[in-house]
Amino acid sequence: MRIDAKEEKTFLKQVLAAYHFSEEDGEFLADTLVDADLRGISSHGIQRITWYTNMIKDGTIVPTNKPKVLRDTPTSMLVDANKNMGQIASGFTMKHLIEKTKKLGVSIAVIRNSNHFGTAGYYARMAVKEGLIGIATTNTRPLVLPTNALEAFLGSNAFAFTFPAEPHPFVFDGATSVVSSGKIQVLAKKGENIPGEWAVGEDRQVDQNAQRVEDNLSTIAFSDDRPDGGVLTLGGNLENNSNYKGFGNSLVIEMLTGILAQGSISADTNKGKHDFSQFFMTMDPTLFGDLDTLKANVTEMFDRIRNLKHLPGTEIKIPGDREYKRYAENQKQGVLIDDKTAAELAKVGDEVGVKAPKAL
Amino acid sequence: MRIDAKEEKTFLKQVLAAYHFSEEDGEFLADTLVDADLRGISSHGIQRITWYTNMIKDGTIVPTNKPKVLRDTPTSMLVDANKNMGQIASGFTMKHLIEKTKKLGVSIAVIRNSNHFGTAGYYARMAVKEGLIGIATTNTRPLVLPTNALEAFLGSNAFAFTFPAEPHPFVFDGATSVVSSGKIQVLAKKGENIPGEWAVGEDRQVDQNAQRVEDNLSTIAFSDDRPDGGVLTLGGNLENNSNYKGFGNSLVIEMLTGILAQGSISADTNKGKHDFSQFFMTMDPTLFGDLDTLKANVTEMFDRIRNLKHLPGTEIKIPGDREYKRYAENQKQGVLIDDKTAAELAKVGDEVGVKAPKAL
Repeated sequence: MRIDAKEEKTFLKQVLAAYHFSEEDGEFLADTLVDADLRGISSHGIQRITWYTNMIKDGTIVPTNKPKVLRDTPTSMLVDANKNMGQIASGFTMKHLIEKTKKLGVSIAVIRNSNHFGTAGYYARMAVKEGLIGIATTNTRPLVLPTNALEAFLGSNAFAFTFPAEPHPFVFDGATSVVSSGKIQVLAKKGENIPGEWAVGEDRQVDQNAQRVEDNLSTIAFSDDRPDGGVLTLGGNLENNSNYKGFGNSLVIEMLTGILAQGSISADTNKGKHDFSQFFMTMDPTLFGDLDTLKANVTEMFDRIRNLKHLPGTEIKIPGDREYKRYAENQKQGVLIDDKTAAELAKVGDEVGVKAPKAL
Repeated sequence: MRIDAKEEKTFLKQVLAAYHFSEEDGEFLADTLVDADLRGISSHGIQRITWYTNMIKDGTIVPTNKPKVLRDTPTSMLVDANKNMGQIASGFTMKHLIEKTKKLGVSIAVIRNSNHFGTAGYYARMAVKEGLIGIATTNTRPLVLPTNALEAFLGSNAFAFTFPAEPHPFVFDGATSVVSSGKIQVLAKKGENIPGEWAVGEDRQVDQNAQRVEDNLSTIAFSDDRPDGGVLTLGGNLENNSNYKGFGNSLVIEMLTGILAQGSISADTNKGKHDFSQFFMTMDPTLFGDLDTLKANVTEMFDRIRNLKHLPGTEIKIPGDREYKRYAENQKQGVLIDDKTAAELAKVGDEVGVKAPKAL
């Protein structure tokens, strides 16, 4: 069914208020979830609310806590998420980085003791709304195999990068691995096969059975006695296809997050409750040129690329094209939620006396 | 044949002095070339000297010119390479960024009107020698196809990233495309086939004939009437293998280099003589933690990865492992140059009255 995005946000804010999030934090959290649904990234949208509810009930998340600034310089911040949700520390941090970059042109930050932070793109887009280049990364649970390895060790490690352009900014947002585990989950739920070289079994042979891969991944990510196999790095299974570059990219994120934050690296995030780390960066492009000129130049480059000769029946899409198109569509037609999520929302709402959004 | 690295450097310095490079610039240039040879990256080593000699003779490169600082802030620099070699502007810029980062923790720079700058890793390693994280990128000639495209548009766009570790730093250095064109050239020279999904012909079908691909690439990179086909992004030929992520990574470099510098994007670098752009960044990891602790943690992570279960007959190598091993070996046994290069060195030396390095 489809629900109205505004009604979705109101529902979330009411539920989050009942969980004792401050009005500001509830507003921000609700916005990150509705934003993901509007962009068609339902895996990171309102369907997460049951998971969050459980973490609040068992004390993993403490909604009244505020992020703690451990170190602060004119160009940097080290932040402790302080047992609240990753989104709250991340929004807080990015807001401060934007201020720092408006003064000094560039700034970086690291968050430790954090949690899943939703979509990386959300925070990178906070920067681009202010005319800045934004970078947001996170480590995650261990799911990804280094080149030649039989065991998972790396996270799927998200990376988002934004750059000002028209009619919408460039937004590159996704796992640095070949895919995130969410994509495999969706295929498993639908009973479909994996269409490419995404995952391997214990013998490091490509496995395209989504259900079997998904069962293996959930054991790997949450167990200490890890079965072999897992998700591949960008570049697939073979060293001859340069998969060591995908491995290198994943390692870069491990260093910028778990290592710099002195939190856990992805391989160890299954040992604690608040063990994700994030890295953020903002840069002011006007250090180098006039913003309107830079925007016009990048927009022109994208238009030339979209119009290159291409395979019949395909399109050349610039990162961001798809999500801005969906955003506009879903604002009009409402966001899509599945029946399971609809039932969960009714239950979550009932518990705190709030009505779940009705079908459009 | 093998030549002694010290003798190689002396030869280069004498030749470069004869070309009227300042002593400092000649020393630096010679060091970048010998360093590449020591690390086994001969494509970027002394074999380039004939190419440089020709560019100096035809006025493309003016050895007495100094880089011009166009804009300078406490955290950034915009530099014009001023018709001298890319290495000189890059070394100059990185030296200043290191000073800025020691004061303010992070800094970024862009170079315009530049040329080929050798290996990206060289500049990133300048930062890591000072305990800093280093990033160096460049755009290049058009060789790489966006997802679904039939025409090349993007550069192979190098990206280097360093992080302090023991016994040697992490150094990730290479093209963001599946391979650089240099790798295909080497196979073509040897008469070997391409072993993976690296390049396509005009129908966007994978072509593993290195000579045919190489012939096509040299026309694409230097011609305005470009034939179709080219090098693939990381992720190979198929959208189902997430090659759009490799495309996204290449685009990020285009924005940080050609766009930010208001120089040429890769697609247009065949139109002028000094049309490459570079982006550099340095970060001080001690903004977030004690350097010895961070180094120990990252070293421990790498050791755990090297010792993961892996496919029989393979190794798990951390980026940098291979090049530091070769560096130590080649310092002892000398650097390898082929017969063609040896003959070229003799000719270059003869012209300015300098003796070429003798075979060990």
